[in-house]
Amino acid sequence: MAAQDVMVGKTIPALLEGKKYQTLKDILTTMEPSDIVAVFEDMDEEKIPLLFRLLPKETGAEVFAELDPDWQELLIKGFSDTELHEVVNELYVDDAADLVDEMPANVVKRILAQADPEMRKEINEILRFPDNSAGSVMTTEYVSLRPRMTVAEAIIRIRRTGVDKETIYTCYVTEERKLLGVVSVKDLLLAPDDDTAVCDIMDENVISVSTLTDQEEVAQMFSKYNFLALPVVDSGGRMVGIITFDDAMDILEEETTEDIEKMAGMLPSEKTYLKSSALDLFRNRIPWLALLMVSATFTGMIITGFESALAAQVVLTAFIPMLMDTGGNSGSQASVTVIRALSLGELEFRDVPKVIWKEIQTSVLCGVSLAFICFAKIMLFDRLVLGNTDITVMTAFVVCFTMAVTVLIAKLVGCTLPMIAKRIGFDPAVMASPFITTIVDALSLLIYFGIANAFLF
Amino acid sequence: MAAQDVMVGKTIPALLEGKKYQTLKDILTTMEPSDIVAVFEDMDEEKIPLLFRLLPKETGAEVFAELDPDWQELLIKGFSDTELHEVVNELYVDDAADLVDEMPANVVKRILAQADPEMRKEINEILRFPDNSAGSVMTTEYVSLRPRMTVAEAIIRIRRTGVDKETIYTCYVTEERKLLGVVSVKDLLLAPDDDTAVCDIMDENVISVSTLTDQEEVAQMFSKYNFLALPVVDSGGRMVGIITFDDAMDILEEETTEDIEKMAGMLPSEKTYLKSSALDLFRNRIPWLALLMVSATFTGMIITGFESALAAQVVLTAFIPMLMDTGGNSGSQASVTVIRALSLGELEFRDVPKVIWKEIQTSVLCGVSLAFICFAKIMLFDRLVLGNTDITVMTAFVVCFTMAVTVLIAKLVGCTLPMIAKRIGFDPAVMASPFITTIVDALSLLIYFGIANAFLF
Repeated sequence: MAAQDVMVGKTIPALLEGKKYQTLKDILTTMEPSDIVAVFEDMDEEKIPLLFRLLPKETGAEVFAELDPDWQELLIKGFSDTELHEVVNELYVDDAADLVDEMPANVVKRILAQADPEMRKEINEILRFPDNSAGSVMTTEYVSLRPRMTVAEAIIRIRRTGVDKETIYTCYVTEERKLLGVVSVKDLLLAPDDDTAVCDIMDENVISVSTLTDQEEVAQMFSKYNFLALPVVDSGGRMVGIITFDDAMDILEEETTEDIEKMAGMLPSEKTYLKSSALDLFRNRIPWLALLMVSATFTGMIITGFESALAAQVVLTAFIPMLMDTGGNSGSQASVTVIRALSLGELEFRDVPKVIWKEIQTSVLCGVSLAFICFAKIMLFDRLVLGNTDITVMTAFVVCFTMAVTVLIAKLVGCTLPMIAKRIGFDPAVMASPFITTIVDALSLLIYFGIANAFLF
Repeated sequence: MAAQDVMVGKTIPALLEGKKYQTLKDILTTMEPSDIVAVFEDMDEEKIPLLFRLLPKETGAEVFAELDPDWQELLIKGFSDTELHEVVNELYVDDAADLVDEMPANVVKRILAQADPEMRKEINEILRFPDNSAGSVMTTEYVSLRPRMTVAEAIIRIRRTGVDKETIYTCYVTEERKLLGVVSVKDLLLAPDDDTAVCDIMDENVISVSTLTDQEEVAQMFSKYNFLALPVVDSGGRMVGIITFDDAMDILEEETTEDIEKMAGMLPSEKTYLKSSALDLFRNRIPWLALLMVSATFTGMIITGFESALAAQVVLTAFIPMLMDTGGNSGSQASVTVIRALSLGELEFRDVPKVIWKEIQTSVLCGVSLAFICFAKIMLFDRLVLGNTDITVMTAFVVCFTMAVTVLIAKLVGCTLPMIAKRIGFDPAVMASPFITTIVDALSLLIYFGIANAFLF
């Protein structure tokens, strides 16, 4: 694979330079659409239209659907009306709807003018659903069968209409657009008798989603049930489209990236890293950075409040970063674990007591261990090796006691905030490391100075 | 869906209590295996074997494969040899191999004794591949066709052998076990003529993986190419098995969870959150917590080194948390973005210069903005509103200048460390928030005191 990639990455531009179009055609025919897309993305802009015209019609449409919107726009601008007509009508409806969604108005006008009436109607149908809903990601090209058809008739129908469908392997049995059942090509092929009626072998316990179901929930259902496709029905139980597993995989990946970005205190990005400009990155990153920086005012105020105590015992300052970081790390461990479990559907709000109890036990184990390790480190390294005689046994005790309490509080804050966020309809992913750290910072300082006050002054 | 869940969650235990076995059978027949597993997991242990016996044979095997190892062991212990024989031989080979991999030795002995000779041979074949390799997650049950078969013969073969195969939709054309091409059921059904030879419509450009390919790479290929199944070949090009998209989805989910856990400074867990004991959580969390805590010794030493300066200007201490946190947040934004892009295959080591240049631009934008916001906040809020007259314009300048420099350094550290880790064969996910924070803490303090020294003392 890798060897082939390298070969192709160098060979194709050279062949294009040498005008060896037939050889290029032969090579391109053997390649997967995704690999052709990768070749396109490494080429000079002006060569793309030429190369695109060398692709077989069907591959062309697949490659086109996977290209970046910028490249799609570039290609469309170079297309004649006939070429555009061919490409648009060869696309799957969901890809065509994505295209219309992303192109500027004047390009959209040309696309819709070249789309066949049926295609245009279906594009418009998909576009009226809200972003990220099942309706907006579905395709309307599925195989529908009638309940009274025989297996043989069903197979004939699949053979006749299957060519344009996104999947033929799951077929939907409908009557007056009402979804009655599903039957797979496997069921049809393995049916004992060609005269069996479809309604006798179909599965009537159909799991479907509504047009308004969130795409993340749809993707979760795919990873739970291992379906090839899921039917989408409107509020009247009428079948309007299907979502296929490959779209579900893309959604899962996209939603996970979004979660991870939020967990690191960023707004979710629309583009991949290499395609984002510095300005894009800046816009995604500055809001949380600024907000969290300003929130640190509280920690500053706490330290200022204890300024005189700190002036008397400057040695206490040296332990602030360690206490704050350990608190922050403990808290994010708990929050990130809970956030991931929530987004995989493993946890629900009613599990709060179980979660809190588990985190209390864990944090006692962690807190006590860390306190002991820390005590040993302070007495042996800081005091003996570094010879810092300002550090008394009492100071070490105060630091380690703070450590244990901070870990407990941090884990509790870390595990409860995401669950509360979920409950009140916020995105739990925001309650991760940066946010938790800022809260735990303030709490750990209050605990530190409180304990120091009790034992040292 | 949700309504049905609730109904079933209450109804099934009640029906079991009332010994309404026929009604139970009827209900269970309508349910998806994953939903039955969820019911099992909420039931009392002693009721599981009874309920399991009510399942249709095939559903029983599917449910069994999805159960937790603890439940599987419990069920096997209650099975007669005949029952065990039935369940084991109904399993897909990859699930049977997973089972053997996870059961204690005495249970394994019983399982292998009850497995048919063919099944036993295939289980052993899968088990000899290293963990997380394509060979260890593949199944050996696929449809193979001969190149000279006609389409009609191929369909007959699928009808005859398909029932036990994990997928029938992608068929593999082999000769003496050499993989020659793939043909889908769609290609076969839509073939113009029943007498066409399979070798004339098969796709010879087969993308395959080797038995030793890492499962993460396999999963990435699925999300790139949208395949239903990928063939696995040995070093001699002989076909040994397939991996199906549903396994790829599970792998993607598992690998992402692992990445997220590592990014939050935890060891990857084997179990889901609710199934992990406090001791499991403790074991996963304490290593990084302890390591990072001990590493904070450096920040402590830096503060101690500047103790006299701090004693003279205690006001400087109040800004330490804000500077450290903002540095840490900036660094993790960069590192997490890069880690995710690496794991999606969007970035490679040769992109390092591009990444660094992008991060420099971004960090200048972020750093300058934050410095201005921070300056305004200090002068207007800390000095005027809170009336902290210890804060001079010069102090504010020192803090804000440090802020800008820290953001720059943090983003550079954050973006380069994951790429270096990847290059030298470490897992980039470890170079996330907690690790970056610890490094950036020390750097930001050095910058702070350096700048303070230059301008204040």
